[in-house]
Amino acid sequence: MCTEEEQATDQAGVGIVETKYFTFAFSPDKFLLESGERLGPITVSYETYGSLNPDKSNAILICHALSGDAHAAGFHQGDYNPGWWDNMIGPGKCFDTNRYFVICSNVLGGCKGSTGPSSINPQNGRPYGLDFPIISIKDMVNVQRRLIDHLGIDVLLSVAGGSMGGMQVLEWMTAYPGRILSAIPIATSAGHSPQQIAFNEAGRQAIMADSDWKSGYYYGGSLPLRGLSVARMIGHVTYMSDKSMNEKFGRQIRRCGRADKFSSDFEVERYLKDRGEGFCKRFDANTYLYLTKAMDYFDLSRENPLHEVFINLTAKVLVIAFKSDWLYPSYQSRQIVKACKIAGVDAAYCEIESTYGHDAFLLESENESYLVEHFLKQVLFKNGIGR
Amino acid sequence: MCTEEEQATDQAGVGIVETKYFTFAFSPDKFLLESGERLGPITVSYETYGSLNPDKSNAILICHALSGDAHAAGFHQGDYNPGWWDNMIGPGKCFDTNRYFVICSNVLGGCKGSTGPSSINPQNGRPYGLDFPIISIKDMVNVQRRLIDHLGIDVLLSVAGGSMGGMQVLEWMTAYPGRILSAIPIATSAGHSPQQIAFNEAGRQAIMADSDWKSGYYYGGSLPLRGLSVARMIGHVTYMSDKSMNEKFGRQIRRCGRADKFSSDFEVERYLKDRGEGFCKRFDANTYLYLTKAMDYFDLSRENPLHEVFINLTAKVLVIAFKSDWLYPSYQSRQIVKACKIAGVDAAYCEIESTYGHDAFLLESENESYLVEHFLKQVLFKNGIGR
Repeated sequence: MCTEEEQATDQAGVGIVETKYFTFAFSPDKFLLESGERLGPITVSYETYGSLNPDKSNAILICHALSGDAHAAGFHQGDYNPGWWDNMIGPGKCFDTNRYFVICSNVLGGCKGSTGPSSINPQNGRPYGLDFPIISIKDMVNVQRRLIDHLGIDVLLSVAGGSMGGMQVLEWMTAYPGRILSAIPIATSAGHSPQQIAFNEAGRQAIMADSDWKSGYYYGGSLPLRGLSVARMIGHVTYMSDKSMNEKFGRQIRRCGRADKFSSDFEVERYLKDRGEGFCKRFDANTYLYLTKAMDYFDLSRENPLHEVFINLTAKVLVIAFKSDWLYPSYQSRQIVKACKIAGVDAAYCEIESTYGHDAFLLESENESYLVEHFLKQVLFKNGIGR
Repeated sequence: MCTEEEQATDQAGVGIVETKYFTFAFSPDKFLLESGERLGPITVSYETYGSLNPDKSNAILICHALSGDAHAAGFHQGDYNPGWWDNMIGPGKCFDTNRYFVICSNVLGGCKGSTGPSSINPQNGRPYGLDFPIISIKDMVNVQRRLIDHLGIDVLLSVAGGSMGGMQVLEWMTAYPGRILSAIPIATSAGHSPQQIAFNEAGRQAIMADSDWKSGYYYGGSLPLRGLSVARMIGHVTYMSDKSMNEKFGRQIRRCGRADKFSSDFEVERYLKDRGEGFCKRFDANTYLYLTKAMDYFDLSRENPLHEVFINLTAKVLVIAFKSDWLYPSYQSRQIVKACKIAGVDAAYCEIESTYGHDAFLLESENESYLVEHFLKQVLFKNGIGR
């Protein structure tokens, strides 16, 4: 039993939060990318929830997915919508901010405060556009590592994320095994299948087909919103499942106002159109290109069998997949678990029953919370933290 | 054992074929559409293979899918590619032209010889564009019925087709139960799910987002090829399966010529781009809009439970689905079979093991042939034909 006061704290979440910024990699050295190119200065936007303990052993890094950002929990002043994983992060929640110091940053290449193709290129004072270099999941993680250094944290208690966020988790597991005590890759893959690449490519082609895209140098003019909206629509269909769409929309018709010949009249069409248009207000089309390409190029077993890349990993791993997720089918998660096991990594696997499809990693918070909460307690126990 | 001569005939297929045309529904009556609008004159392009027997009891109608046309078998003079179902139609093949008279026509709304949005509107001498009325699967079938009347055929031995072709078969089963002795709906649905609608809608939005689409009145100017190409790419991804794409493409890279930042370098990307561009050369963007909308609106159980629409059907039915077809999942085929069974229809069901996804209805010709060949023999036997 918890007291009423405790309950109130639980329900309150992390409250009002502010995005912070960290800038590094100034000239002449700048930041070395996986491609060999150099980029700088680099700004990272990030948020933190909870407090770092004196021995800095309670830090958890949250990695966001394609359309996410640094705002994972709480509310920005004046906003009505909380951060994208607010049901998982907060006092009494599974990423318990009474206990853990939770960090989330916008990825390199993003458009929500971190340096990306819409940022100003110091070379000419204009937005980078396609002069922005190709970036990789590894580059995103290297930038996160610099942020973690900046915050004075040597070892992360955990790193967690779903989808593209899960790829970053996997990259942490292989690039910085000594700097994490645990990892939670969710609904993700160690390398995109041709089907995953194909859906991303259809979205990219939709953006680049928009005459307003102007080879990526559209800033200051009309934005390629029609293309971006189509890309987002394609994405949304792949994030849901046949079953969840049947339950949510059926074949319901929703006619509103003047019905043109090819106006969107099925409920599902309106939903996708609304979502596509809403996305355009908050997302940059070039960022969509750069991030999806980073996901498609990500391939942990490019040079060696997957189990070999986990050989130095002593962190405890929890892999989560969802039964109805056909975009990141569970066999991809099981491949990660299998490779971990062969490498002798302490890895657990859970496939959650859900009808939500890929979206489940954002929606199945109750099931996820239960798993994550107990997993983190085991990590604390194993490492003798907080006793 | 067959003789060498017979073998040669078998392998030769139906040889050189010509598309024919039938025009009807002249003013003032024209053709009454399901929407209540009238359209005319209407031209139907069609091909026939084999010979109609004296008692006209050996005619089989083949219905094509979204991107198909009247050219189902054989070669057009000078062409190197045969018709779209050439592996199924021909002497000695399952739709055996030594035995059957096989007919295939381009659907109403099409762009390969039948009246559609790119046809000349007699009212103003210009292509219809979006003045072309909304058409339905029922309208397509009503036009086919007029063609069958024109050919002097009272009763079809069978009507067969996959995907959108399967919808036409289902419509024949309900609208003209007395005019068919059998029906073979393949990889189809009695009503699109929201997921199927959503993928179609993403394609339509891609076309309408193309600034060259010009609200459908683009004929004579630049064509909306970028949008149509994206629509086709989306389609192609949904026609294949995760497994077949893994087998066909893997993560192979194919760099050709100058590699731009977002050039298509994965094998699967090049394939989709080539297919998308190839499609643009032979297909009209407005037809894509009209036909996909007809598919989305098709719903046999809109007014009554599905089994009630089959209540008058005495025809023998063979429903075929494919295990890896996730766009038209087999449960949709089983719903059709179940409804047939409840209605007392003589229906058989076969789910073919295949990794090809929805494309299987075009590719699994050996398995399909076996089923169709024996099914048609039973239909002949049941009806005392050819004894």
